[in-house]
Amino acid sequence: MNKIRAMLATALIATSGVGAVPAYAQFAKPEDAIDYRKSVMTVLSAHFGRIGAVVKGVNPYSAAEVQANAAIVEMMSKLPFDAFIPGTDKGDTRAKSEIWTNAEKFKASGEQMQKAVLALSAAAKSGSPDQLKAAFGDVGKTCKGCHDDFRRK
Amino acid sequence: MNKIRAMLATALIATSGVGAVPAYAQFAKPEDAIDYRKSVMTVLSAHFGRIGAVVKGVNPYSAAEVQANAAIVEMMSKLPFDAFIPGTDKGDTRAKSEIWTNAEKFKASGEQMQKAVLALSAAAKSGSPDQLKAAFGDVGKTCKGCHDDFRRK
Repeated sequence: MNKIRAMLATALIATSGVGAVPAYAQFAKPEDAIDYRKSVMTVLSAHFGRIGAVVKGVNPYSAAEVQANAAIVEMMSKLPFDAFIPGTDKGDTRAKSEIWTNAEKFKASGEQMQKAVLALSAAAKSGSPDQLKAAFGDVGKTCKGCHDDFRRK
Repeated sequence: MNKIRAMLATALIATSGVGAVPAYAQFAKPEDAIDYRKSVMTVLSAHFGRIGAVVKGVNPYSAAEVQANAAIVEMMSKLPFDAFIPGTDKGDTRAKSEIWTNAEKFKASGEQMQKAVLALSAAAKSGSPDQLKAAFGDVGKTCKGCHDDFRRK
């Protein structure tokens, strides 16, 4: 168990950098890392979807609500990456092994998404539905791009 | 499908109030609400646990990291309540029916937790490990209290 912890800690130090999470942050078990990152994506996706419902006219535009949702998306966007510990392409996950074999591209994809999410936050604060729509579309493209490359169907 | 959506929307209006999430926020299916609230709790718990590791001396004290974790806990603390839609004590959940039969008590428990979490954020910002430890313990009591009353073993 201590061996696994040490291994995970080392792996985290190696992969750390994208997120705000400290390098020594530990997941007791690989499954915990998988569960954590999936949970982050579920929360991110729910609130991104709520912005989408506004963009698509399903729900009315409210600057305050759009900003609240964008703030949650922004916080979540920083979290998943440190949980992609080597070896966690096995188990209850759709993570492709390319995440680790093409780590530079994966990192770049994550950074692109985070950048687009920052622009979404700015658009949410602008109070302009048109800016919001454009920024929403840009984030969506980064989601799709990364999922196409690094997530199994 | 539209009927279910409308029902869920109505249910959300009825239960809304604790969180920052708009009353018309919709979950397409009851399972989505369950998955969402469990995901929120997973993220909350992971970052609360990282503060715990500092409080317990497993990881070194870093004011910046403690604050970052507390900010995530604080944001998550606002989210789960609107997802406790009537009828979602069935399915892949440990939610007890008391959440709905004793809704006032559940609401009060949620508010107590949120209040304790705000104090945790303040303690994280104070830079005092002693204040952090006390506030961490206080939040832990609200977790346990609510889980004892409203979560199945």
